[in-house]
Amino acid sequence: MNYLARQKKLAAVLRQGGFNALLITHLPNVFYLCGFTGTAGVLLFQTSERSHKVTFYTDGRYSQQAHEEVQSARVVVSRRAAFIEACEGAQKAKIKTLGFEADQLAYSAYKQLGQMVRGTRLKPAAGLVEQLRLIKDSDEIGQIRASVLLAASLFQTALTVIKTGVAETQVAGELELQARRAGAEKMSFDTIVAAGPRSALPHGRASSQPIPAQGFIILDYGVILAGYCSDMTRTVHAGPVSRAHRRMYEAVRQAQLASIAAVRPGVETGEVDHAGREVLRKAGFDEFFTHSTGHGVGIEVHEPPRLGKGQTQKLAPGMVVTIEPGIYIPEEGGVRIEDMVLVTESGHEVLTPTTKDLITL
Amino acid sequence: MNYLARQKKLAAVLRQGGFNALLITHLPNVFYLCGFTGTAGVLLFQTSERSHKVTFYTDGRYSQQAHEEVQSARVVVSRRAAFIEACEGAQKAKIKTLGFEADQLAYSAYKQLGQMVRGTRLKPAAGLVEQLRLIKDSDEIGQIRASVLLAASLFQTALTVIKTGVAETQVAGELELQARRAGAEKMSFDTIVAAGPRSALPHGRASSQPIPAQGFIILDYGVILAGYCSDMTRTVHAGPVSRAHRRMYEAVRQAQLASIAAVRPGVETGEVDHAGREVLRKAGFDEFFTHSTGHGVGIEVHEPPRLGKGQTQKLAPGMVVTIEPGIYIPEEGGVRIEDMVLVTESGHEVLTPTTKDLITL
Repeated sequence: MNYLARQKKLAAVLRQGGFNALLITHLPNVFYLCGFTGTAGVLLFQTSERSHKVTFYTDGRYSQQAHEEVQSARVVVSRRAAFIEACEGAQKAKIKTLGFEADQLAYSAYKQLGQMVRGTRLKPAAGLVEQLRLIKDSDEIGQIRASVLLAASLFQTALTVIKTGVAETQVAGELELQARRAGAEKMSFDTIVAAGPRSALPHGRASSQPIPAQGFIILDYGVILAGYCSDMTRTVHAGPVSRAHRRMYEAVRQAQLASIAAVRPGVETGEVDHAGREVLRKAGFDEFFTHSTGHGVGIEVHEPPRLGKGQTQKLAPGMVVTIEPGIYIPEEGGVRIEDMVLVTESGHEVLTPTTKDLITL
Repeated sequence: MNYLARQKKLAAVLRQGGFNALLITHLPNVFYLCGFTGTAGVLLFQTSERSHKVTFYTDGRYSQQAHEEVQSARVVVSRRAAFIEACEGAQKAKIKTLGFEADQLAYSAYKQLGQMVRGTRLKPAAGLVEQLRLIKDSDEIGQIRASVLLAASLFQTALTVIKTGVAETQVAGELELQARRAGAEKMSFDTIVAAGPRSALPHGRASSQPIPAQGFIILDYGVILAGYCSDMTRTVHAGPVSRAHRRMYEAVRQAQLASIAAVRPGVETGEVDHAGREVLRKAGFDEFFTHSTGHGVGIEVHEPPRLGKGQTQKLAPGMVVTIEPGIYIPEEGGVRIEDMVLVTESGHEVLTPTTKDLITL
């Protein structure tokens, strides 16, 4: 990973925004800029007209790890909390205008910062690093591809485990063990295994409920590999598929394909959402599509851009997004199909290789 | 769980603090007060002189789940984000003084709230619900016991898997699968399996590194069961144990016992920390004990109180804390032993049943 290149881009953004420094407390942003993977670390990012200076603060628990991982930044290990030490660093540096991550920094921490850097002007800075992270560089795209392929390989494991009577958590557990064996650091979010009527819960985390003999089963999961997330959903079916269920599945599949087809540079994310929603509307299912079409994926499993109704952000090459329409009919069941899609110069590339044909058990 | 009893306590705290209402955005607090387990929900908690009124806001993804789970609160499902809807609810209610969770609410959200509730006085309210959560009620203690016992049962699984040459992630994966089979919702944090020189990393998340033939192996993990966390650490040893390693292990074991012995109502948490630190000092290891002695555990795996140097909070019956001293010698290895301990009327009860004798592979 070329941390220095990312830092130079951020320095330019800060100069343009009238910031002399930025206090970076959001850990995914810290990881992006220097490679630290622990849970306690803060960056003080100072710029001057022609250069920049990055200091990484952590506490004693992460001393060895910080020295091993952190690149292109000076490492300060403190007996106190990293945040306090970083505030003190900012105070000593007599910064004129200091940005802080307004979307993440808690009100109390903001107040504490203000008390420690008297004489410095604090300026809310929302999404500056996230803005850079929107466009993945080639190293990142490589890591994301690997993460997506690992997740896709687990779908086969899931299929061998899913049987009537097996608990949803058992399916999730086998899939997660396989992820570990394949080298994943962890799952990118709580694995969703939602069977039968529970498939009507868009966020049906695996429960102790056994897989029923009949109905849809939604599998929604992803892994983190070398710091990068994947996210995929497939819906399979237990028992004979009724005409109504086949219609539901086919509507979602067509909606998903329509949204994918809309992905290309310059298109607004709201248009991508609209393309799929329109298919569901024509099939009479739009009232059951109760969430947005997708989101960016990278260091975080949910990151910009958002692909929802009326969103105006334009897609650009290097963005990686999910396309995941779904319909959820209370008590009956639900269907969701989700791929990760890379925006390319000429259009898009679907990263998830898994079939979308309806698999029945 | 008696949500109403908790709500009545909070209402009293709010009246005493001069709040007419509290906007509760921190999800563990939302769960504590109404039982919702999803990832998008906000409570508007209004009080009058003799009664209180609780409204729960969520979005369409959680409609069914909210109606199933939420107790003692009116449920509002919105097409918009729960936070926006809750702010609007607050605005319509014409609240005089509205508290917000200053330790969690991000600066941007605070500003947004301020713009939506013009005419209302916003007052930072840090830790009000956390203060109630400090003292576990009998339902909670029952859940925590079950969570601790489940975690302890997994230690046997780990011992059957740990062998020279097996990847740390494989050990973590087997343990996590077993946790799922036993009904855990998920792990309470990223499982730590840190072997050989990596055991000197206090937060050595399981890596692809194989277990070496010689050295300490730290296992630190916990589960979430019915919403309540457990957290435990044991250190085992591969290969013959040198005198130096036996001395390290014994020092930590004695330090842990000394801190546990200090746990009783009325004692300051700093004294508990001091008791163990003193043992390590006498053994010449205190410079290698680079973190604090423990923390509260409940709905969150890290919650108040903190048991660190100089902390003055007094222990009280119903608190549940970890006692987990450790020493970490760079390149050599580390040892940590951690139990969960309940503060009782007469002293304490160690909840974790697992042996602390040094187990060698």
